[in-house]
Amino acid sequence: MRLVRVARPSGPAFGIVTEPPGKGEHVALLDGHPFDEDLAVTDQLAPIDQVPLLAPIIPSKVLCVGKNYPEHAREMGTEPPSEPLIFLKPATSVIGPGDTIRLPQLSDEVHHEAEVAAVIGRLTRKVSVEEAEGAILGYTCANDVTARDLQRRDGQWTRAKGFDTFCPLGPWITSEVDPGAGITVRARVDGEVRQEGSTADLMFPIPELVAYCSAFTTLLPGDVILTGTPAGVGPITAGQTVDVEVAGVGTLSNPVEADV
Amino acid sequence: MRLVRVARPSGPAFGIVTEPPGKGEHVALLDGHPFDEDLAVTDQLAPIDQVPLLAPIIPSKVLCVGKNYPEHAREMGTEPPSEPLIFLKPATSVIGPGDTIRLPQLSDEVHHEAEVAAVIGRLTRKVSVEEAEGAILGYTCANDVTARDLQRRDGQWTRAKGFDTFCPLGPWITSEVDPGAGITVRARVDGEVRQEGSTADLMFPIPELVAYCSAFTTLLPGDVILTGTPAGVGPITAGQTVDVEVAGVGTLSNPVEADV
Repeated sequence: MRLVRVARPSGPAFGIVTEPPGKGEHVALLDGHPFDEDLAVTDQLAPIDQVPLLAPIIPSKVLCVGKNYPEHAREMGTEPPSEPLIFLKPATSVIGPGDTIRLPQLSDEVHHEAEVAAVIGRLTRKVSVEEAEGAILGYTCANDVTARDLQRRDGQWTRAKGFDTFCPLGPWITSEVDPGAGITVRARVDGEVRQEGSTADLMFPIPELVAYCSAFTTLLPGDVILTGTPAGVGPITAGQTVDVEVAGVGTLSNPVEADV
Repeated sequence: MRLVRVARPSGPAFGIVTEPPGKGEHVALLDGHPFDEDLAVTDQLAPIDQVPLLAPIIPSKVLCVGKNYPEHAREMGTEPPSEPLIFLKPATSVIGPGDTIRLPQLSDEVHHEAEVAAVIGRLTRKVSVEEAEGAILGYTCANDVTARDLQRRDGQWTRAKGFDTFCPLGPWITSEVDPGAGITVRARVDGEVRQEGSTADLMFPIPELVAYCSAFTTLLPGDVILTGTPAGVGPITAGQTVDVEVAGVGTLSNPVEADV
C-alpha cells in the first residue's frame, strides 16, 4: 500500500495510490485518517499527476540518527558511534515533494543528506527489536538538510538541522519495501549522483532504531525516524534541484532557493 | 490573566482563573481555544482545588536553552556560551502539575532544572527583539529534567532530555509577570531550596531567545521556550517531590518515582 496526502479544496486529505485497469496510477481518497482501525477508501479517484502531493505526514516528532553509515561517519572525520546518535528536527521543518528548500541567510554551507525514513503506525513504547517491525506503518524518502557550518559551530544540532524547509518528506509512505533486505538510497543534485548507499550497511538497522528510540520516548502514530545518510554529502545552492531516491519507494524532488 | 487546562469528563478543556467576590479562586471554562481571536469565557465555574489541572499546553515543540545563567554554566565546567545554545525536548516529555516524574532505568543520575518557560501566543517567524515580547502569551514554570549521565555520554542531548515525563509544565500560564524586571526562580526538593536565581541574570533575556529561535524555526501558538536553569542542579530520587517556584507565576510540584 502507498499512502499519500494531497491538497484538496477542503484542505489536506489522505489517499492511497491505486491503479484501475488500463487507467494508470490514481489517488483514491480516504474517508478519515490512515491511523483509523479500518481504512475507509472512497470512490473519489483522481490521476496522481493531477493532485498536488503534500508531505505524506505531519509528524508530532521527527527523530533522526547521526552517522549510521560507516562511510559517512568517516567522511565526517569520526568513527561510527557505538550507540545510535539521536537528535530531533522540529515538525515545522517538514515540507513535501516539490516544495522549495530555502537556504537561510545564517548559513553559507547547506548540505543534502538522503535518507530512508520509517513512519510509525501505532503508539509504541519500549518495544523489543523483534516487536519493532510491527510498529512501522511504512517508509518514505527524506532529506535531512543540514547547515554544516552551524552544525560545527553550535555543538547541539537543533538549529543546523531545524530550519523551516529542512525536512523534505515524500512522495508517499509505502509498506511494499523491506529496508532490512538492503535497498539503495541515493541523492542526485541536478541529476548527478552525489550520494549512494545501501540500507544493508546501516550500523543500526531500522528495527534497532525503533526499539532504541521507544526505550526513552513514546512514539506516536505518524512519528518519523530518519535513519541516517550514506557517504557523499555535499552543498546545495540556489537554483539546483535535489532528488532523494530510495529503491522500491520512489523519488522525492525539491528545488533549492535562497530564503526570502 | 491566568490560563489553565483542566481534565473534564468530556476531555481536556481550557479555562481562566477568576475570583468571584468572596468565593476564592475558581476556574471559568473557555468555550473553544485560548488562541482564538476572542476568549469565550463561559459561566461554568469550579473551585480551582476541585478540578484536576493538566499541563497548561501541549506544545508542537519545546525549545530549550542551555547554560543561560552564568553560574550554572560554570558549575557545568564551561564558560557561558556566546550565542544561545538551543535544543529540543519532544512534546511526549510534557507532563502537568502533580504528575509523576519517572526515573528511567537507563540512567543513574537524573537532575532537576528549574526554569521559567515562555509560551508563544501567535505564529512567529523572524521577529526582532523588540517585536518578540508581543509574540509571548505568558509564562509558566518548567522543569528541564535531565539524565546527566546520558547527557555526558550521548553528545547530542535528545535522549538525556527527552524521556517521557522529563518536561513538567504548569500550573498555569500567566501574563501577569515580567521576567525582564528580574523574577526569582527556585527549585526545592522535599521543601529544601536547591536552586535559586533571578531572570535578571539571564545571559540572553527572553525576548532575545524568542527572536533567536524565530530566526530559524517558525514558532507556532502554544510552542514553549524553556529559558535556562540557575545554578544548583542536582539529583532527584524516587519518593522525593520537586517544586519549581517562579515568583509571580506559582509553584509546579511533581513527585518522583522509579519507572515501571
